[in-house]
Amino acid sequence: MINTIQEVRDKTPLIHHLTNQVVVNFSANGLLAFGAAPVMAKAEEEVTDMAANADGVLLNIGTLTADELPAMIRTGIAANEKGIPVVLDPVGVAATPFRTTAVKNILNNVQPTVIKGNAGELAHLVEIPWETKGVESIGDGNPDEIAAKVAEVYQTAAVVTGETDVICADGDMLHNHAGHPLLGKITGAGCLLGSILTACLTTGESVGRPALTAVRYYGLAAEYAAKHPNVNGPGTFLPHFIDALSLEPAKLEGI
Amino acid sequence: MINTIQEVRDKTPLIHHLTNQVVVNFSANGLLAFGAAPVMAKAEEEVTDMAANADGVLLNIGTLTADELPAMIRTGIAANEKGIPVVLDPVGVAATPFRTTAVKNILNNVQPTVIKGNAGELAHLVEIPWETKGVESIGDGNPDEIAAKVAEVYQTAAVVTGETDVICADGDMLHNHAGHPLLGKITGAGCLLGSILTACLTTGESVGRPALTAVRYYGLAAEYAAKHPNVNGPGTFLPHFIDALSLEPAKLEGI
Amino acid sequence: MINTIQEVRDKTPLIHHLTNQVVVNFSANGLLAFGAAPVMAKAEEEVTDMAANADGVLLNIGTLTADELPAMIRTGIAANEKGIPVVLDPVGVAATPFRTTAVKNILNNVQPTVIKGNAGELAHLVEIPWETKGVESIGDGNPDEIAAKVAEVYQTAAVVTGETDVICADGDMLHNHAGHPLLGKITGAGCLLGSILTACLTTGESVGRPALTAVRYYGLAAEYAAKHPNVNGPGTFLPHFIDALSLEPAKLEGI
Repeated sequence: MINTIQEVRDKTPLIHHLTNQVVVNFSANGLLAFGAAPVMAKAEEEVTDMAANADGVLLNIGTLTADELPAMIRTGIAANEKGIPVVLDPVGVAATPFRTTAVKNILNNVQPTVIKGNAGELAHLVEIPWETKGVESIGDGNPDEIAAKVAEVYQTAAVVTGETDVICADGDMLHNHAGHPLLGKITGAGCLLGSILTACLTTGESVGRPALTAVRYYGLAAEYAAKHPNVNGPGTFLPHFIDALSLEPAKLEGI
Repeated sequence: MINTIQEVRDKTPLIHHLTNQVVVNFSANGLLAFGAAPVMAKAEEEVTDMAANADGVLLNIGTLTADELPAMIRTGIAANEKGIPVVLDPVGVAATPFRTTAVKNILNNVQPTVIKGNAGELAHLVEIPWETKGVESIGDGNPDEIAAKVAEVYQTAAVVTGETDVICADGDMLHNHAGHPLLGKITGAGCLLGSILTACLTTGESVGRPALTAVRYYGLAAEYAAKHPNVNGPGTFLPHFIDALSLEPAKLEGI
Repeated sequence: MINTIQEVRDKTPLIHHLTNQVVVNFSANGLLAFGAAPVMAKAEEEVTDMAANADGVLLNIGTLTADELPAMIRTGIAANEKGIPVVLDPVGVAATPFRTTAVKNILNNVQPTVIKGNAGELAHLVEIPWETKGVESIGDGNPDEIAAKVAEVYQTAAVVTGETDVICADGDMLHNHAGHPLLGKITGAGCLLGSILTACLTTGESVGRPALTAVRYYGLAAEYAAKHPNVNGPGTFLPHFIDALSLEPAKLEGI
């Protein structure tokens, strides 16, 4: 874990985001704290140029409109051509036909390095039944099965977030148990994880190890922040969580 | 008050927002802390589907563009058809003809459960003279008269926010004196109140009681947060206010 | 410094923003704390009306799209006609041809009172070579030369931000050394400075003095916040920085 994170901090990779407007500020601040550099350009005319200068790309459909879809697809294609990692976060894909179609459209044009989402979102992509509510996943089933099927169907790595995070990459199944319930009480916790995951993937290792590093570090940072004596709820948790994202892994692990 | 808030927290109603981009993050975090679930979809193609899954709808014109208006109207119509509460927050409606026309357009198509705004905004809707500056209300007059007239003209309930909040609902006039000046020093305090008001209206009681609960609880949470020893200005008030929105009513009342 | 800031707080000038969606909330909260009033209307149909009611205008291209450019230009023209200050923040102008063309388009139609940006951005406007990464400036050269040339070429004042901020206004070259590295770890620190600079320019003094006041006060507020015992990283710095922006200059200077 230490090596991946140190490498990110040494390189400060530029992560180009096409993400939702609810989380742009939080994602930028969290990624800056972590040690990478966010950029959030969204004009169709410039996304190809921006992706050409980037080290990784995050596509998040949280507040996507039809007008914005072409820029997202262009960004993904440019990243594929450059050979940099692309993370797709299909936020709320099960909630509406518009989202389902948009994600299909992206996946028909862009090869993601990782598809990352909660169980409800990723289950929907491979037609496994799962209960959702708005953009939240409230079902109950087997995330390993979902991760494996997403990885197989889309020839990608899959990260299924939840109380236990499941990673299916390069034929391996990895699990992370670090995390804290307060992450579920702040908006964009999953979205920012996507940003940090993208940053870790720029280290050029095979996907499994940096992906596990990202989710584990993120969960440990949440645990660390939640223990701070000044944290008394989701509001005070948030700034302390951002602080924690800038710390050394050893500090978060308490070693 | 306890019953309404407990019912919201037991059900975690899904509140579909078409709101302004300044406050999306703050509104989502505040509503999550309070115990409801925000969704912020804005694509015209999906708002009807999202509203069909929602328990309440908030329409806030703070940064509305002409392109976004049809999605807002569609959302309101879908909510009316489903019979779920619709709260309209006509932010800055007096500031420009564009806003005035947009709100008229919404009100010609959508029946709001509550129209909520400051005195300047609601006075403008019923042509009572009132001084405003940008999106702020700085006039001086009779909020009860404004609330009563908005309720009558638009056949709705009205919530006029201010140092004293006034609610006109079901023929009753209710008042709330809880609150704190720091709410006026953070952006989106009125907008987030709209979200929490919508959540409280999903309890299915007649409008007056849940509306009073929302504004009173909100004011008490502000008072509670402002007293925290770590709060020294609007910046530190904000996270403590979010924390306070997750507390039991009895705790906020100091009982 | 005291006079300019007191005058802003006495008048609470209305600053109309056409700014990027990453920073809208942070800019609004920071400007409110400082003592001015933000408005963020962006519909092309209303920006002229909003500018007509404003005391100053900030144009920031951070997440500009082609659709949004006409509203930005209209706002600037309306501000020029009214004779109120216009600050242009050409965020990331060197990053893509789209941004370069957009800024040229703005400058062909709008006379800014101040062009404000980091050295990479302002160097690009006057074709001085400079290294950038995404929207960050990482080059190494002479900011005084850049400021002087921007001021001359565009017949405006120039503020080049960096470890030392350089102001070229009315033929004078002014420098500010106050500041803190944590400003570089939160998103939108430069953007919010643009808002506060615009507010200070509404005092109607010649540009140099209020501009220096803005950057110096901003830097001192950052130093003051960073020293707070509850600040342990960029996350906890942010709310304390907002608090500091509401303080008396003498308090920040420790006198």
